[in-house]
Amino acid sequence: MASTIFTQIPFQSKSLNKISNTHFVPSFKLPVSLSYNPRTALPKSLRVRAGLIEPDGGKLVDLHVAEPERELKKREAASLPRVKLTEIDVQWVHVLSEGWASPLTGFMRESELLQTLHFNSLRLDDGSFVNMSVPIVLAIDDSQKESVTESNSVALVDSDDKLIAILTDIEIYKHPKEERIARTWGTTAPGLPYVEETIKNSGNWLIGGDLEVIELIKYNDGLDRFRLSPMDLRREFERRNADAVFAFQLRNPVHNGHALLMTDTRRRLLEMGYKNPILLLHPLGGYTKADDVPLSWRMKQHEKVLEDGVLDPETTVVSIFPSPMHYAGPTEVQWHAKARINAGANFYIVGRDPAGMGHPVEKRDLYDADHGKKVLSMAPGLERLNILPFRVAAYDKTQGKMAFFDPSRAQDFLFISGTKMRTLAKNKENPPAGFMCPGGWQVLVEYYDSLTPSEDGKIPEPVPA
Amino acid sequence: MASTIFTQIPFQSKSLNKISNTHFVPSFKLPVSLSYNPRTALPKSLRVRAGLIEPDGGKLVDLHVAEPERELKKREAASLPRVKLTEIDVQWVHVLSEGWASPLTGFMRESELLQTLHFNSLRLDDGSFVNMSVPIVLAIDDSQKESVTESNSVALVDSDDKLIAILTDIEIYKHPKEERIARTWGTTAPGLPYVEETIKNSGNWLIGGDLEVIELIKYNDGLDRFRLSPMDLRREFERRNADAVFAFQLRNPVHNGHALLMTDTRRRLLEMGYKNPILLLHPLGGYTKADDVPLSWRMKQHEKVLEDGVLDPETTVVSIFPSPMHYAGPTEVQWHAKARINAGANFYIVGRDPAGMGHPVEKRDLYDADHGKKVLSMAPGLERLNILPFRVAAYDKTQGKMAFFDPSRAQDFLFISGTKMRTLAKNKENPPAGFMCPGGWQVLVEYYDSLTPSEDGKIPEPVPA
Repeated sequence: MASTIFTQIPFQSKSLNKISNTHFVPSFKLPVSLSYNPRTALPKSLRVRAGLIEPDGGKLVDLHVAEPERELKKREAASLPRVKLTEIDVQWVHVLSEGWASPLTGFMRESELLQTLHFNSLRLDDGSFVNMSVPIVLAIDDSQKESVTESNSVALVDSDDKLIAILTDIEIYKHPKEERIARTWGTTAPGLPYVEETIKNSGNWLIGGDLEVIELIKYNDGLDRFRLSPMDLRREFERRNADAVFAFQLRNPVHNGHALLMTDTRRRLLEMGYKNPILLLHPLGGYTKADDVPLSWRMKQHEKVLEDGVLDPETTVVSIFPSPMHYAGPTEVQWHAKARINAGANFYIVGRDPAGMGHPVEKRDLYDADHGKKVLSMAPGLERLNILPFRVAAYDKTQGKMAFFDPSRAQDFLFISGTKMRTLAKNKENPPAGFMCPGGWQVLVEYYDSLTPSEDGKIPEPVPA
Repeated sequence: MASTIFTQIPFQSKSLNKISNTHFVPSFKLPVSLSYNPRTALPKSLRVRAGLIEPDGGKLVDLHVAEPERELKKREAASLPRVKLTEIDVQWVHVLSEGWASPLTGFMRESELLQTLHFNSLRLDDGSFVNMSVPIVLAIDDSQKESVTESNSVALVDSDDKLIAILTDIEIYKHPKEERIARTWGTTAPGLPYVEETIKNSGNWLIGGDLEVIELIKYNDGLDRFRLSPMDLRREFERRNADAVFAFQLRNPVHNGHALLMTDTRRRLLEMGYKNPILLLHPLGGYTKADDVPLSWRMKQHEKVLEDGVLDPETTVVSIFPSPMHYAGPTEVQWHAKARINAGANFYIVGRDPAGMGHPVEKRDLYDADHGKKVLSMAPGLERLNILPFRVAAYDKTQGKMAFFDPSRAQDFLFISGTKMRTLAKNKENPPAGFMCPGGWQVLVEYYDSLTPSEDGKIPEPVPA
């Protein structure tokens, strides 16, 4: 998947007809005795209707300290033991503070980590489940553990010792690194980007608790205006009178294949009877691996795509999803979908091999390309979300544009690989007309132009779609 | 865990009081927002009351072909492509055929395997979940795949080409070995017994489908009379007018610490108001690793324990659980508990590090000793089962018998290690009086006596409790 540009479009409306008030299930085989029947599986109270979907747990979590108490909390924090956060830890504080992980109220305690690792879900007081597939945990080392064990709260500070938050009612427990990696990625092979970056050299202990975040987290990179919280997004969707919100998670440049998919999805939602479906174009803004196109360049490219009118600004909201990237395939796509429920999305577009990557050691993709959408369609706690799988589109030479791939005339289609795209952009050549809007392409040309080859003379490879 | 003999007894009745009509939860911390509250989590209709608990899915599965159709099925099978089963495959056919895995109707199709690996549970038509934590799958190699792809059914035969069953409505899909191992065991380290035995060299494909089992599976080892099916057991419990059934899974010799635990549990259930609690003493009879005491010797030992009156035959049912052993800790203990629900048990005794073992590579236990009972207490689909955790007992020198370990007078207690026990038995010496009934001990002496040292002169080590 990593080496081919493609985009996909929803299955035939025959299947899509089921979507309007149920959880869409792709047509892979389920034995009768255990077949997933969304109509029976979905409690009436949760049926998706016009208006915004309820956040997980019924209430959107907001972990920010209210202005009046802020000074008090700062003084309180001054007397607490300190735990230093990495950049990625701060990204998770950001994610938690705005309620993307509702109903989580802070870094996971052991009972939440165990439920996440074994069940990809958390059980609520009423016995219902919310989805939670990715561990959101904070690691500390032995000396940090020593320094905090006497206290019930700790102050969380960034690399400049700036106070970020207070973690209260703390629980410290063993960091089961190998088990965490195996159950999250389905492999322990060396070279998993997030593992190398955040787990391998992290502490042997995890500290869970409830977060009190002192100030809104800003990155001052000129993109903070795009970082809308789930509450901001819900207000925006309401302002626009959206009766359906369909989310498109991406971490790569948008080409016309994606645009085709998104506009076609809106058309289908209108066909289904929705009056005003709004697209949440939601690039991931947290940690990504070195060969992904950086957020700043992606945002420039997305802006051009909107300027060039490929997508309609009237019915599109572009915002940044602050989560770091795990590249954990079927496990992570659940997190990507669940977080968008909290932001008000009731439709989620899922592609081939979501959150996937090549196996770090073996010559194959890490995950089966179809497992992501299958797991997503069966995941506990996501019954209320309508899953929109899509099939491959490619460049149709006969039409001179991106179109749904038609196997019966395969020879008419051109799959433009990442290598091919990089080579074109690097040589300042143009792709086939209609592959990407000129403004967006120009941004990519500038990006690759800006890259200085690394020691081994290799330039990072973009991984579109 | 592997090196110490211990047994454990339920927490104080203070906590046990909660058990009578709810799913017991140990006192480890759950954050308020996500705390597991059994009273609300448990639908009224499922509250455990006097009488036998309902099987998963509401109906106990029986996959045997009825006598009248047997000949017809045999003729049908003769014309089908054949798949040869390993001994462990046959054990799984046995497990499936009697409904231990109800509502599963055969080897898992991909949708069931994915739910098992990611969610440890399967969703039913009504949207409810049953627990299913261990993959029950059948692997085939490329050539076998070739030979069956044209057919909708295959004949399953044993190593002597004897017809065992027909698998119908088959689905063949990739065998994701690495992912299956990582998500089941939480490690991919080499040396996991079940992995080495059944997965490492197995085929690259899995074949799922519905089973039609031609004849009852017998082992002709003199122990078949102990192999009661879930239906047999339910009939037996009803015959005895059991109003509570508490299951004790084991794969090791029973010493007086276990006996203490089991009799004490019955006493507590009587205290709770149950009139006739029956113990299901349920040794695992399928595949076990080389250093476990073989089933035949364990059964001899269990019989002695009953003969010697350590356990009351009137209130105890000894039967063999036909499942193979995974040694997958918190993942597998869910399977051990779920299967006993199908056999009519509504109480399950869980010890320290259930289904655990030493890490195959590192010098540590593979699993945190407390994770098993924690995961079990939170597992989807096990809400109806009352979990009875127990704490360590050891040999009390002051009383000359096994007793609950009292940390305040630790010096009074003797923990008899597996090595110590082996040395004693090997040298035909006796353990401290009161450690194990003489008849049971004699069996162990005979077992170790019967062992011929392997090349490296080492004798397999028993791993009691």
